[in-house]
Amino acid sequence: MGEHGLSLSSLVFTVAIIIVVSYSAQSLALKHSPRFLAKFAARQTQSAEPQFQYETRYFQQRLDHFSFSELPTFQQRYLISTEYWVGPQRLGPIFLYCGNEGDIEWFAQNTGFVWEIAPQFGAMVVFPEHRYYGESLPYGSAKEAYKNATTLSYLTAEQALADFSVLVTDLKQNFSAKDCPVVLFGGSYGGMLAAWMRLKYPHIAVGALASSAPILQFEDIVPPETFYDIVSNNFKRESFSCFNYIKQSWDEISSTGQTNNGLERLTKTFGLCQKLKSTVDLYDWLESAYSYLAMVNYPYPSEFLMTLPGHPIREVCKRIDGGPSGTSILERIYQGVNVYYNYTGEAKCFELDDDPHGMSGWNWQACTEMVMPMSCNQESCMFPPYEYNYTSFQEECLSDYGVKPRPKWITTEFGGHDIHANLKKFGSNIIFSNGLLDPWSGGSVLQNISESVVSLVTKEGAHHIDLRPSTQNDPDWLEEQRKTEIKLIEGWISDYHKKNKAIFDM
Amino acid sequence: MGEHGLSLSSLVFTVAIIIVVSYSAQSLALKHSPRFLAKFAARQTQSAEPQFQYETRYFQQRLDHFSFSELPTFQQRYLISTEYWVGPQRLGPIFLYCGNEGDIEWFAQNTGFVWEIAPQFGAMVVFPEHRYYGESLPYGSAKEAYKNATTLSYLTAEQALADFSVLVTDLKQNFSAKDCPVVLFGGSYGGMLAAWMRLKYPHIAVGALASSAPILQFEDIVPPETFYDIVSNNFKRESFSCFNYIKQSWDEISSTGQTNNGLERLTKTFGLCQKLKSTVDLYDWLESAYSYLAMVNYPYPSEFLMTLPGHPIREVCKRIDGGPSGTSILERIYQGVNVYYNYTGEAKCFELDDDPHGMSGWNWQACTEMVMPMSCNQESCMFPPYEYNYTSFQEECLSDYGVKPRPKWITTEFGGHDIHANLKKFGSNIIFSNGLLDPWSGGSVLQNISESVVSLVTKEGAHHIDLRPSTQNDPDWLEEQRKTEIKLIEGWISDYHKKNKAIFDM
Repeated sequence: MGEHGLSLSSLVFTVAIIIVVSYSAQSLALKHSPRFLAKFAARQTQSAEPQFQYETRYFQQRLDHFSFSELPTFQQRYLISTEYWVGPQRLGPIFLYCGNEGDIEWFAQNTGFVWEIAPQFGAMVVFPEHRYYGESLPYGSAKEAYKNATTLSYLTAEQALADFSVLVTDLKQNFSAKDCPVVLFGGSYGGMLAAWMRLKYPHIAVGALASSAPILQFEDIVPPETFYDIVSNNFKRESFSCFNYIKQSWDEISSTGQTNNGLERLTKTFGLCQKLKSTVDLYDWLESAYSYLAMVNYPYPSEFLMTLPGHPIREVCKRIDGGPSGTSILERIYQGVNVYYNYTGEAKCFELDDDPHGMSGWNWQACTEMVMPMSCNQESCMFPPYEYNYTSFQEECLSDYGVKPRPKWITTEFGGHDIHANLKKFGSNIIFSNGLLDPWSGGSVLQNISESVVSLVTKEGAHHIDLRPSTQNDPDWLEEQRKTEIKLIEGWISDYHKKNKAIFDM
Repeated sequence: MGEHGLSLSSLVFTVAIIIVVSYSAQSLALKHSPRFLAKFAARQTQSAEPQFQYETRYFQQRLDHFSFSELPTFQQRYLISTEYWVGPQRLGPIFLYCGNEGDIEWFAQNTGFVWEIAPQFGAMVVFPEHRYYGESLPYGSAKEAYKNATTLSYLTAEQALADFSVLVTDLKQNFSAKDCPVVLFGGSYGGMLAAWMRLKYPHIAVGALASSAPILQFEDIVPPETFYDIVSNNFKRESFSCFNYIKQSWDEISSTGQTNNGLERLTKTFGLCQKLKSTVDLYDWLESAYSYLAMVNYPYPSEFLMTLPGHPIREVCKRIDGGPSGTSILERIYQGVNVYYNYTGEAKCFELDDDPHGMSGWNWQACTEMVMPMSCNQESCMFPPYEYNYTSFQEECLSDYGVKPRPKWITTEFGGHDIHANLKKFGSNIIFSNGLLDPWSGGSVLQNISESVVSLVTKEGAHHIDLRPSTQNDPDWLEEQRKTEIKLIEGWISDYHKKNKAIFDM
């Protein structure tokens, strides 16, 4: 990498993308392009009628739980519903969703599973927001919180877990609910938090449903190619020619960009609102679409990120493949990507990401603790080949955020190597659920570990589909998966009640 | 409490005392008197010929592991011996002692058990020093590290555990010893760290011997009277009259102090080098002796804190009881306390603690996380009665250190309530060893929890006697206890090897 290269690496989360584009044929400068779906969150929260009801409350949190530094406290937002809670006498459970990197209202509306099963469990539902996201901003505002590396320095997973632990301990006290079992839920990064919280705070929660939680996407635990290979396979399985068109398109874009008026032509071909400044911006925009499409490759229409048809990649490939003979590769790509960016047909033109270098929360996390190596293999990956290079990554983080990553910290703090042996011996009551279409499944736990640390894998599932609100179009395998999850959670709770009684009777 | 009261509460650790003296009959100001045995540590390390051999090394640590604040790093000292290590091919274990609140060399010399069993295990021995103690000082010097609440703010147990985890992960990498099992050892606060590390970092260590580790001495988990009741019982079991003389002495001291020339008389009676300024200083000095005596009430002569005979409390009571009829209570007390402060007979006069208000590490920890409520019961306790009052405690900490304690944090972070249920479900491979003469045993785990979380209780044992170097005078029960510990540790390691092999064979 470096200034003579242009390579590709994407970290794509539910609500976050980092794309580093680098391609040997060009002399375009390295681009480090962070994307945050907080913008999705903001848009959807405002537009959609809330489907689930809750009260919004705030809790004062320390900025650094692990030191006694005199720092300003901040107000953590949390959403709470006691509507179905059967109360402390009947040891009604507390369902705690581990808020992840975005506005908590958005997650609450998109995590229907928790709300839908709360009544049958007589459960209280709590959705605490992750620090530095949504309204839970230290230093009073997003502008101040995201000002620099110093103000951002307390945006870490361990602090977030301590926030959840302190909050739920306080809630239990206020509700006289000391003995009520807490069940954790989380998807994506939130799923990682749920699994880690179950491991690090087993005294606080009796179990965790960790959906699409890539806790193994660190260091060399899984091959760095896994993410992009899965994205690519999503396309390849629909049509090999579709995969190939995309694979060929990067060179096409690059060579077009280098010609006279090339950038204008690309601007026109792709219907962009503003003139393209660099082909790298277009790479970014396309890669982002493909990666998100793989994550939300749900079998039914959804509006999670964008308004999309069911099996959206099938639709993309239909359009890419479907152009009459003689249709150019770029025109095909344009038709395909329209499925993602303009399925409703309302967009008149496309705005590329306006502030790819802006300081965003997930980018900070990716540049500090969440160092997830990603490569793109010449053969199996449809993006420009890219070999992960930690040194370059570190340089970018130093230059962008003035912070040096700690790539080994997560596995030191939470484990990860020898995860099977460790989870078997120390973990219990964790469900790792994954859909194999989800590119994050490659970094997740895909095998049963023990009787109570189980893996639920669905061949046709995408990113934490099980946590989404149920729909009339849910396939049988999804209904089955949710039934199994409910049964396991019931088991944790009844187990807890039995143990509680046994100790009480002692 | 407050300015009209004078009450008593002692937090006594291997190397630390906080004494708050308050007594309703007097109008002496409340005294918050911290004591640190780092002075013992310093003295003993310099005078004694080192019994065990090691190399001294240093490791660069972050000041705050849980944030990305730009703070100066510090050099953590650690002692290491690979003399008996059978190396990585044979998966030689790593014995890691969790350094506690003092100079690590002193702990190394006083933790003979680890050194003595290393050869038969083919183990590497590592003694990392706890941050802010000994030479492991942030900001370059003790003066700077202990300057104020800001510089002290990173002195927490969680940071210390992260130090150990980062260090041992790095050591394993450097020795190509990734698969070598780590066994944790610790006594007193170090024992708490060992138990907590096993719970929080199960992926790093296969088991922990936590000797005299009062992990339950928080909030209302155990009655606050337990510590002083045990100290008092140590005296009562030797002689009821001894217990009574001590119980009566406080009023005697107080009323003498209030007479004309009373302080001079007390100065003379107790052979003090400088004129007594307040009876509270004398209370302090005596209480400190009694509490330490209970901790080191070993069955054989020792030089751990002071040069002492075997069964030192028996000796103290012999002298208190032994004065001819007509001997005053204060003269008896003086004779008794001489066993502790001057068994060798070398002292010409006694210096009371010269800087009881000085900032010391354990005091900081007691005023921040390690909030251990202690009361003294009118009936069963031989010290002036005192009821623990959190509000006063908090005021003292605010006034002394400018810091507000977080009394619920330790149980939120590490658990403690419902410890039996939690350890049974989540813990494994922990030995809680305790001697019932040790006042800290009341806050420790004294029951077997499961097959692999076991409690070894000895009726005649005192503060972490099992970790001390073996002597020719070791009683049978101590030899038995150590044999059991060795057997359990062997079990952890062979279990680990079996599992490792099973996974390797998969």
